[in-house]
This record gives sequence, structure tokens and C-alpha cells, in this order.
Amino acid sequence: MHIGLVGLGKMGFNMRERLRAANIEVTGFDSNPDVSDVTSLAELVSSLQAPRLIWVMVPSGDITNSVITELSEHLDAGDLIIDGGNSRFTEDQKHGALLAEKNIGFMDVGVSGGVWGLKNGYGLMAGGSTENVAWAMPILDVLRPEGDRADSFVHVGDIGAGHYAKMVHNGIEYGLMQAYAEGYELLAKKDIIEDLPGVFRAWQKGTVVRSWLLDLMVKALDEDPGLESIDDYVEDSGEGRWTVEEAIANAVPAPAITAALFARFSSREDNSPAMKMVSALRHQFGGHATKPSGS
Amino acid sequence: MHIGLVGLGKMGFNMRERLRAANIEVTGFDSNPDVSDVTSLAELVSSLQAPRLIWVMVPSGDITNSVITELSEHLDAGDLIIDGGNSRFTEDQKHGALLAEKNIGFMDVGVSGGVWGLKNGYGLMAGGSTENVAWAMPILDVLRPEGDRADSFVHVGDIGAGHYAKMVHNGIEYGLMQAYAEGYELLAKKDIIEDLPGVFRAWQKGTVVRSWLLDLMVKALDEDPGLESIDDYVEDSGEGRWTVEEAIANAVPAPAITAALFARFSSREDNSPAMKMVSALRHQFGGHATKPSGS
Amino acid sequence: MHIGLVGLGKMGFNMRERLRAANIEVTGFDSNPDVSDVTSLAELVSSLQAPRLIWVMVPSGDITNSVITELSEHLDAGDLIIDGGNSRFTEDQKHGALLAEKNIGFMDVGVSGGVWGLKNGYGLMAGGSTENVAWAMPILDVLRPEGDRADSFVHVGDIGAGHYAKMVHNGIEYGLMQAYAEGYELLAKKDIIEDLPGVFRAWQKGTVVRSWLLDLMVKALDEDPGLESIDDYVEDSGEGRWTVEEAIANAVPAPAITAALFARFSSREDNSPAMKMVSALRHQFGGHATKPSGS
Amino acid sequence: MHIGLVGLGKMGFNMRERLRAANIEVTGFDSNPDVSDVTSLAELVSSLQAPRLIWVMVPSGDITNSVITELSEHLDAGDLIIDGGNSRFTEDQKHGALLAEKNIGFMDVGVSGGVWGLKNGYGLMAGGSTENVAWAMPILDVLRPEGDRADSFVHVGDIGAGHYAKMVHNGIEYGLMQAYAEGYELLAKKDIIEDLPGVFRAWQKGTVVRSWLLDLMVKALDEDPGLESIDDYVEDSGEGRWTVEEAIANAVPAPAITAALFARFSSREDNSPAMKMVSALRHQFGGHATKPSGS
Repeated sequence: MHIGLVGLGKMGFNMRERLRAANIEVTGFDSNPDVSDVTSLAELVSSLQAPRLIWVMVPSGDITNSVITELSEHLDAGDLIIDGGNSRFTEDQKHGALLAEKNIGFMDVGVSGGVWGLKNGYGLMAGGSTENVAWAMPILDVLRPEGDRADSFVHVGDIGAGHYAKMVHNGIEYGLMQAYAEGYELLAKKDIIEDLPGVFRAWQKGTVVRSWLLDLMVKALDEDPGLESIDDYVEDSGEGRWTVEEAIANAVPAPAITAALFARFSSREDNSPAMKMVSALRHQFGGHATKPSGS
Repeated sequence: MHIGLVGLGKMGFNMRERLRAANIEVTGFDSNPDVSDVTSLAELVSSLQAPRLIWVMVPSGDITNSVITELSEHLDAGDLIIDGGNSRFTEDQKHGALLAEKNIGFMDVGVSGGVWGLKNGYGLMAGGSTENVAWAMPILDVLRPEGDRADSFVHVGDIGAGHYAKMVHNGIEYGLMQAYAEGYELLAKKDIIEDLPGVFRAWQKGTVVRSWLLDLMVKALDEDPGLESIDDYVEDSGEGRWTVEEAIANAVPAPAITAALFARFSSREDNSPAMKMVSALRHQFGGHATKPSGS
Repeated sequence: MHIGLVGLGKMGFNMRERLRAANIEVTGFDSNPDVSDVTSLAELVSSLQAPRLIWVMVPSGDITNSVITELSEHLDAGDLIIDGGNSRFTEDQKHGALLAEKNIGFMDVGVSGGVWGLKNGYGLMAGGSTENVAWAMPILDVLRPEGDRADSFVHVGDIGAGHYAKMVHNGIEYGLMQAYAEGYELLAKKDIIEDLPGVFRAWQKGTVVRSWLLDLMVKALDEDPGLESIDDYVEDSGEGRWTVEEAIANAVPAPAITAALFARFSSREDNSPAMKMVSALRHQFGGHATKPSGS
Repeated sequence: MHIGLVGLGKMGFNMRERLRAANIEVTGFDSNPDVSDVTSLAELVSSLQAPRLIWVMVPSGDITNSVITELSEHLDAGDLIIDGGNSRFTEDQKHGALLAEKNIGFMDVGVSGGVWGLKNGYGLMAGGSTENVAWAMPILDVLRPEGDRADSFVHVGDIGAGHYAKMVHNGIEYGLMQAYAEGYELLAKKDIIEDLPGVFRAWQKGTVVRSWLLDLMVKALDEDPGLESIDDYVEDSGEGRWTVEEAIANAVPAPAITAALFARFSSREDNSPAMKMVSALRHQFGGHATKPSGS
């Protein structure tokens, strides 16, 4: 089997490795010539025999849009584009409709596993037609971990459903990380805890909270027991936000996931306007001292 | 009528003024000799004729405990102590029991109104016996604003009930301030808002969100339109914490009030251990860059 | 002055009354013939002399869209439409652009005050050009409460800014109501509170939490002291949701307002899938009994 | 080695099995004669040779208190009591001090793993002296899973530290379960998701959110794909509450864990007083219809 792969960053690069190691022929394109096998999307397309399967693994939003649009100009009816990035499910539905006009197929595959996927395999959530899922299955079977297919792959539904499941996966991930992190701080601030990294390490086997994220926390604390080298500034990518937006759109109470998102927002604020106002109010009614700005 | 008043800080000092302006005779004691009328609690007690009424207006916790304990040694059966401070209701119940052994009466009165109470009068919430409430009524009627008694005074229940109502009042206050402050930040961060102080000012009459706290926000923004002089560091006193503890003890969901409390905790953290851990985890699984400490 | 008014529901009907009482001539149109002055939008437009000012006061979304679109077909260059409903600010920007093509002016005015506005006047937040605001000022001055204009009216910015401020106002309103409601439940569940309605009544004068919403709570408790007649099912309109969406879009932590929104979502769930899963999980790991469905 | 074990419920019963399978001699006592090896605590103590080691595995609070108090009357200096239940760490400190007066040793061991511990082993967190930990180590090594000791056992600190770590573990567990449950509801309410149980199953290998709790969700959904048989009523034990109380006491923002606790409170409310008040308020200011009670 021979496929095209657009995007050779942290995720795509590793996926090419994993696919090639399983004797899937992969022609990769990236704007970085150091890692790219071809010099353009046009060359990528012409290197493949129809019907072509091209996996797109680039940042969601404008870049994914432009890659899919440009590909659609080079591909033929009967070809298939798989968006393996983190696109919003509504984007998938637009892309699917655009490509359907040219009889080009489309699938969305949510991919989880991070930089460890190269070695461990990736968890995969697919949206699209049964026919296209079947076409892509040899690729999917290589990308996912060994063992029962159902433990690492699911055909969630039609176009968009794969990325919807991945979006929810990431929302859950936000909540899980926040819960562990709150526990970490509770232990870190209590004087009777003499072996904080040891607590996390001892949770790895046997406890109810054991998980892969816990294993990674143990690893992080092993590398830097007090997390001294790390700032408390946390970015968020789109999917946490979209999860909360979907919670709102569907009237689902999602307080834990939302708390995780807001905690990241707070972590990036040097001087919160809201808390300045609370301080100002306390001064106004109670004569409580405010702290001068910048102190 | 002649009463004793212990504690002449921001609140007690103003209350003495308001009482004297209404021809209530007040002998005040404070550890600060510049404001004190007498030099000791013993002297305060001996300056009053039995049955004595002494209003205690000192910080809650150890100081209130020691004042009430010391007073109990000087007072006689039939006297009455009113704790007008911010004691936890469980403390009231202890103090009431302690004093009852000596047949000294006890009442708790939650007092709201801050530094504006001197001029406007205070909202009052009383716990204790009907008899003691009746005894204190001339004082309470002076301290509260003019107009219908029921609009600014309530006999909530037995000992502790007054401070319980005041505790909940303060918990609500946390939630109200947080809600306004979040709205302030939403407006402050939106480029299409050209007159931010004007928005708050225009909410004062006619809107659903009009309130005294809103009036104070208008005042704060009038004094410092961008709150430039104020840091986003916000203290909390005991009552917000106790409110959440009571929510937990009584299985009452209190997410908005709790959000307000946690926002204050966050405002005081220079480097949140929890968010360092979230950042560390994102690096571990996704290879996402962390921000170096102190950057 | 003679204006057109589209929409004579709870809000529009009262506004017509208030305007007429101040000798503003108002021709109103509503799909309900019992309250309408004319039989069609076309008739409404032809009843006014150019340049016309038409105030639209209909439900946001599709109805506002169709009213504005239909009006645009009847109006002339130089006329002015004011959307006084609860449209999302992004809709205003669309409507403004649509009408600008025909040189018809557009303004958005956020209106707060509910059913009490007839008597008390409404708080008003306007978006649009200085010229159009000046044109509408005689109307605005009648709709708002008497007294200083700046206490009840603000020109927030360009088109959309008025409704943005109103959206934030409503988000704050959600948070305020939730904070009071949590406090109400804390008092309702505590056995030592003997006069719960009395507590709210006594907060009306003097306390830090006094507000118009508090006055309405006192009124509600006066009508039904235990709120026996009311279910705990709470709808939400669009503006609470939009406020949280804007918080997300602008990275503003808004935990109290969001808590209020989620509490409403929860209030409407008969059988929460999330909590069923938590119950199922507790059973799985701890052997804890689940409660059978429907019990 | 021969130890005493008090409490043969879901946890203690399994632990006796696991210990005996490893050739630890166990004499168990329970108030239920069907499972008890002896008829009284006195008989239990006299069946052991000094210095005795007795593991207490009974419900926290009054029952643990009375068992430890009664045991202290029968034991001798040099004996050791281990509290393996879910006592609050402050109780441990009281028990340790009480027993120290009689030169009886005390250790607290947080035990995680639920009903699966019999087969998988338990994660263990110990508080107490190094000497006592060493004494108990043969027991601890049998109770925990095979493999590196540090992956399933930690000596956290002095008396109380073991249960503190277990309390935080349970707080984290609340947060994790809530995050997954919110994700479950998001998927359950979205029409494009055609294979909801399949999504959870496919997350088991390879994804960032894989965990033991996830495996249990897969099992729960396998047994009852729509969770039809389960009500959304969720109990909470003490440890979630204590975790939030410690968050408050130590000024640690813990919004996700607290959200999980409040969601359980809400799940148990048939008719929330808070939401009745919000509904009443909406009616007061906006004329919005309330839903009649019981509808």
C-alpha cells in the first residue's frame, strides 16, 4: 500500500516512521524541506497512483483548510482525504461537502497518543462512510497499538463524528489533568507530606487513580521533583474550548472540564482585571487595604 | 441608656459615633489608648451600672474569645454580652454556654454595612433570646437605618443564628462581587467597548443588576478608571470559607460562591503548583513546550 | 416626534405606553391584532414620514432577522432601525452592514428593567454612530428613568457594542441570582434559622448585599414564603450562553457566571447521564450500591 | 506471621483472603458471626502473641473510634494498631496520641483498589514511624501488587500522612470520574455519535485518557450500554468533602474536585431550593413563567 502524508511535525513525522516500519509505503510532504519527501502537494499527488489515499496531519484551522482546498484541485474523483489533525467537527462537515462535489471522499480520524504514539501506537476515532473506513483500515491497523482492534479504534459515525469524539477526549483530558494537578498542590502545600513524588509513584499500581497520565506525572517528578524548572503558564489548544462550547450548545453541565479550561486562562493572566475589581470593591465598602499595582 | 463597647476599630469607632449622636451613652474600650475611653476591661465594667450591656466588636477568633472570657470574669449574673463581630456561629454557641454557667446573657448580632454604616446605618441579624433582643432593641434601632425595622433588622433565631445569617450574607457578597468582576473583565477585554466606566454608571438606575455594590464600582472607576493603581491580589476573611464549609456540611451545591473563594486563592498565588503540573504533563505527552520558571 | 414600534409583547407593549405617556407618537405593529395599531410592516412604514425611526422589539434570532430584512425592503435611505431586543452583537454587525448598503441607519440598544420598566424606566446601552444616537435621544430619554442621563444611559461604542454590554449585564445577572440562591438554600437547610424570609427582608437596607434583585426576592418570599408553588426548573435565554462563549473566546475566566448557567442546565435534567456514569463507576470499583433507575 | 484483623466487610474480607493465600496467619473479628473467627475483640487480642499487630478495617468515624478505644484496653505496651480504613488524618493524630500514652504503636495506611484488590493487590500509603512501617512490611508487601514496592507503596510521613494522601487520592478520584462522566454526557447527547460504548472501548489502548477507571467504564457500558438500569443519584463518602475542606484550609484552588462534589450533591436533590429561587426571581423581574411545583 502506498499513501500520501501531508504534515511531518511531531505527530506526522512519527506516523510516517511507524507506517514505514510496517511496510506501508509513505510519501510525505512538509513545508520544511529537511523532512519532506517531495517539494509540493502537486508532486505528492502525482507520485501516487489513483485511487489515492492522502492523510493530512497539519494544524487545524486555516492551514488544514488551505491544504484540503489545494489537494482538492489536484485529486481525482475516487480519491480519499483523511484529516487526522485536530479539526473542529463542523470543519469536517464543510470539507466533506466540498470534496463530495468532486466525488473525492473524506474521513476524519481523531488521533490520540502524543509523542508516545510512535512506540505505543495511537488511539483512533474515525468518522465517515463504512466504505472509506474499510479502505483505510490497513493504515489504521498499523497506527493503532497491537491487540484487539476495538480497544484502540472506533468508527464513531459519519463525517465529523471522529473529531467530535476526539474533541470530547481532549476535554476529558483537561479535566483529568486538572484533578491530578489540584491533588498535587494539596499534597505540596501540606507539611506532613514528606515524600510527595513517592505518593504519585505509589499510585501507579493497584489504586483507583492509576492511569497513563499518572505514569507521566511520575516521570515528570522523577526528572524534576519540585517542578522547579517549569512555569505555571499553561496554553490551551482549541479542543478544550470547543468542548465547553458544545456543552453550552447541548445544555450539558460540564463544571469540571470548564474549571480546567478557566484555570489555564487564569494561569496566563499577569494582572486579572476581575480580581482588581474585587480588590477595589473590598476597599470601597470595607476600607480594606488594596495592594498597590506591581507590588 | 448607657452601654459598654469593646473594640474601636473601623467598625466599632463608627458605631460609637452613631450611638452617641442618638444620645446613647457609650463607654468604649480599645487597646489603642488614642481612641479608648477607659484603660481596661475591668474599668469598663465598673463604669457601668448592673444590669450591664456590653457590645463586643473585635476580630473574630482568639481576640473575641479572650475578650469574652475576660469580661465573664468581671460581669455579674444578669448582664448581657453582644458579639457584634464576625464570629463563626459555632463560637457563639460555645460562648453562650460558657456565659450561661454564670447567668450572663449572650447575643450574636451580624452587622453589615462597612465603613458606610456610620452614615447609612447597618443591616443587623440577631441570634439569642427574645428577652435579650428586646433589651438591646434601643441600641439596634439606632444602629440600623431609619425606616421600617423589618427592612434592616431580623431576629433570626437562637444563639448563633445571627452570625449564621451574616456568614451567608458574606458568602453571597463573595459571589456577587465575583459576578460583577467577571463582567468587568469581559468588557475590559473587548475592543468594541469604548466607554467601560460609562457602562457601569448607566447600570445604576433601571437595570436588573442595580445594587449598592454596583454604586461602589462606579465610585471606584470614577476614582481610577482603569483600576491602574490596584493589584489583583485579594484577601479573604473567614466567612467566605465558612460558607463553603457549611455548604459541604449540609450538602448544598454552592458553585458560584465557591468559585469566588477559589478566585481569591488563585489571585494570591505567584506560581501555582497545580498549573506547573499541568504544564509538565502537557510537555510529557505532547512535547508541548513549557515556559521556564520565572519567565 | 412620531416613531414606529415593531413587537408589542411584554416589553414592547409597556414601552409604547411609556412613550405615549410622554407625548411621543407611536405606531405599533404586532402579529397579534388585538394590540397592533396597523396590519402590516408595510402599513407601519407608510404611516411614518421620512426620515423614519423604527424601534424593533421582537425575539432575537430568526424573528429579528426577518423583521429587519422585511423592513429594509420598505424603508428609504436616511431612515433608522433600532434593535432594542436581545440580539447577539454579531447579528447587529450583520444587520448594520445589510442596511448600510441601502443607506439605512442601524443602532442596537440593550434594554434592561423587565416588566418594571413601564413604571421605573429602563436602563439603556446603545451601539451605533453618534449621529444616530443623537437622533434617538428624545426616545431614549423617555424610556430611561428620570435623573442624570449617565445613570441610566450609555453610548457604549459602535454597532454591536450596546448589545455586547447588555449581554454582559445578563451574564452578571445570572451570577448574581445564583449567588443569592445559593445563600437562600444554605439558610433554608439550616435548622437554627427560624425566620428565613425575615433575613432577606432585613438585608434590604444597610447591608452590603442590598440590591433590586434582593428586593424582588423579598417580594417573592412575601407571596410564597417557602416557594412551595414553584418548581426548580429554570430556563435560560441566549445571553447567558453567549456570555460564557465570549469568556472562552477572550480567555476570560468566568467561573461564577458559568456556574450559574450550568446550574440551570442541571435543573432541567431529570436523569443526568453524567451522574448515572459516576454511579456506575462507584459500583464497578467499590461495589457501592447503585439506585435503580426511576427510584 | 500472625496478625489480627478487625472488620470483615467488602474490604477486610478480601484482605484476609489475600493475606492467608500468602501464608500470613490472620485471625479476623467482625460483628457478623458468619464471617468472624472469634466472638469478641478481647478474644481476638488473646489469640495473638505479644507484640501484637492488629489491622483495623472498619468504617471511619464513630466505629473506628470505638474499636481503637476498646482495643487499647486489651492491648499491651509494644503492640501496634494499624488503621487501614478511611479515617480523617486528624483522627489518626488523636488515635496516635491516645495509644502513645499506653506505649501502643499506631500507623495509618490508606488503602486503594476497591473490590479488585483481592486479585490485583492494593495501593498503600502509610503514615507512622519508620520502625512500625518496617514491622508491618511483610503484610504490606502481600497486600500490594507484585513488582517494585515503590510502585504501590509509599511511606508518606508521620502519623496521619498516609490517610492524608489517601484523602487526596479520593479527591482526585472524584475529579477524574466527573471529567469522564461529563465527556460521556457530551457524547450521549450528540446525535452524530453512533457508537458511544465503542468510543470508550477504543480509548483503552493508545490514548492519553486511558486509565483503570476508563476500563471500568467500558465494563459498565458492556453490562448496560445505555446505563438504563442505573439512577443518577450519587452518594459521597467523607473523603471528597475533607479534600475540599483541606483545599479551603490551605488556600488551594480546587475547582474541578469541588465541581465533582457539588455535582453529587445536586444529583441527590429532588427539588433544589436554590433553583426554585432563581425561577421565582426570573418571574419577578421578567414575568417569565415558572413551572408549577411537581410538574
